[in-house]
Amino acid sequence: MEEENHAQSESYAADITSIREAKVRISPYIHETPVLTSQSLDYIARKQLYFKCECFQKGGAFKIRGASNAIFSLSDDQAAKGVVTHSSGNHAAAVALAAKLRGIPAYIVIPKNAPKCKVENVKRYGGQVIWSEPTFQSRESFAKKVQQETGAVMIHPFNDKYTMSGQGTITLELLEQVPEIDTIIVPISGGGLVSGVTLAAKAINPSIRILAAEPKGADDAAQSKAAGQIITLPETNTIADGLRAFLGDLTWPVVRDLVDEILTVDDAAIVDAMRMCYEILKVAVEPSGAIGLAAVLSDQFQQSTACKDSKKVGIILSGGNVDLSVIWESFAK
Amino acid sequence: MEEENHAQSESYAADITSIREAKVRISPYIHETPVLTSQSLDYIARKQLYFKCECFQKGGAFKIRGASNAIFSLSDDQAAKGVVTHSSGNHAAAVALAAKLRGIPAYIVIPKNAPKCKVENVKRYGGQVIWSEPTFQSRESFAKKVQQETGAVMIHPFNDKYTMSGQGTITLELLEQVPEIDTIIVPISGGGLVSGVTLAAKAINPSIRILAAEPKGADDAAQSKAAGQIITLPETNTIADGLRAFLGDLTWPVVRDLVDEILTVDDAAIVDAMRMCYEILKVAVEPSGAIGLAAVLSDQFQQSTACKDSKKVGIILSGGNVDLSVIWESFAK
Repeated sequence: MEEENHAQSESYAADITSIREAKVRISPYIHETPVLTSQSLDYIARKQLYFKCECFQKGGAFKIRGASNAIFSLSDDQAAKGVVTHSSGNHAAAVALAAKLRGIPAYIVIPKNAPKCKVENVKRYGGQVIWSEPTFQSRESFAKKVQQETGAVMIHPFNDKYTMSGQGTITLELLEQVPEIDTIIVPISGGGLVSGVTLAAKAINPSIRILAAEPKGADDAAQSKAAGQIITLPETNTIADGLRAFLGDLTWPVVRDLVDEILTVDDAAIVDAMRMCYEILKVAVEPSGAIGLAAVLSDQFQQSTACKDSKKVGIILSGGNVDLSVIWESFAK
Repeated sequence: MEEENHAQSESYAADITSIREAKVRISPYIHETPVLTSQSLDYIARKQLYFKCECFQKGGAFKIRGASNAIFSLSDDQAAKGVVTHSSGNHAAAVALAAKLRGIPAYIVIPKNAPKCKVENVKRYGGQVIWSEPTFQSRESFAKKVQQETGAVMIHPFNDKYTMSGQGTITLELLEQVPEIDTIIVPISGGGLVSGVTLAAKAINPSIRILAAEPKGADDAAQSKAAGQIITLPETNTIADGLRAFLGDLTWPVVRDLVDEILTVDDAAIVDAMRMCYEILKVAVEPSGAIGLAAVLSDQFQQSTACKDSKKVGIILSGGNVDLSVIWESFAK
């Protein structure tokens, strides 16, 4: 166990120490979010489910954990010229909010197809919006340009030690709230959330199973895991606007080595899960946030060997920023 | 203080002792619901707001507290022939659920205009539905008929010592979670919730201010308080389907003597508050549940002397059972 933890800390960008440091650093700026349970959903899933409600987090998503950890780790000199990032929305709002808390400017590159409510969050927190095309390449090149012009520090949405460590603080909270959890289901996109959550969980209890949930229309992580190398896709097609990014060189090794399985679900199942969150849990969850519930209900999980050994399943409801019109139109289909 | 508590216990149907007993009795059957906060809403309200989320309670509303207290207080002989009640929905589902937990039949009289999602809750918990006309008189006469035919025990939705005491357990939890609260805003209808909450709060700390929130289209409690006697209305007209009942002879004395003020809000303000709960808190709240937020934002409160002395305000989000179509159509207006 000692050796295993030591090996981890040498191999990956973040570790349990950086995650524990993150918790101390960010605790003045974030909510400790509650865990909700529902006998009705337990009955449907045939498991005891523990919903970690990051939709109630500041800014409406877990992203403030990583963003505040990265921004409050900067020296005053580094922070002086501000920060820049690119994001479809939740990381953008989180960087804007954390920068506001630190009193420095935030430049936010946002793809044109980002949900309106997420863009409004960025503006409400005082972030300066720069529009890009809706591709990852366009986002990155716009952000680099802003970085060169302003001298702002790049706060990467996932491929960064501090971002990953901040997201990992969810595990510390969750395992304090429900120590007996044996499985955690985490949405996967660029891998910042899943890698932080996984590194913390496996360090605390190596037997905890980590399942990553991914939309079928953006299944690069499942393909990467199968191929043993990072696979990117020419395009993605999913309602889960927060799950369209691809793995980075810092997050991929964690996914490759420590994530036990990747479950892929289609958009119809994601919408069904959103509806159940709304109607049964009484929680507004965005499509990317509901995917964990969709995954635990999927045939892929229910018929797997992992399912047999899972009794108490933590599900990270990662965010709640969804335009009501999106919910309504999805449910009406 | 000693004398005051003693006077209370002689004067009203419930008291801090019956409420503490209720807490012990019902704790195996209910959730301890979380308290959420939002800096955005604090900014809008110019107060520190603490949202007690009874929408996450079993059955989706606070009603299981009173119903389970009443049903688990029955002797085996009393319970054998089952229980009966009449309710627009949340109390109905709570009685069905508590009866199921006790293993006895539940006969539920429901007015024809009750929301579909609430009726489905009753059926899901195994309650036997008897339809009545949408008037309080029709509800009561149908319930009495069932009572005579079956020998079932009537579980009154509000005008009952055990129901009132169960609802009062919310205060015990809330003041443990946020001891520094100086004001609590509670929806008022038949008065079961507000009387239980008030009796507990004033016994623990007589300086806690209790404000009851009522729809303008069903303002019988405000009229009663002004007249010094129970006033009933020929009809009610409000989107808040849970707030259409009138005070009973056990709840009225508490409202008359101990509730500090009644705030009335119109349906448009209730819908605005529902939207804020959904978009900012990420919580699905029914119209009756959102009225406390509407009240704290109302001119009537913001311009009152009570407002000046209120710093930390507890708001009871009493329930979350709302058909999505109701939300959507309300927001679209």
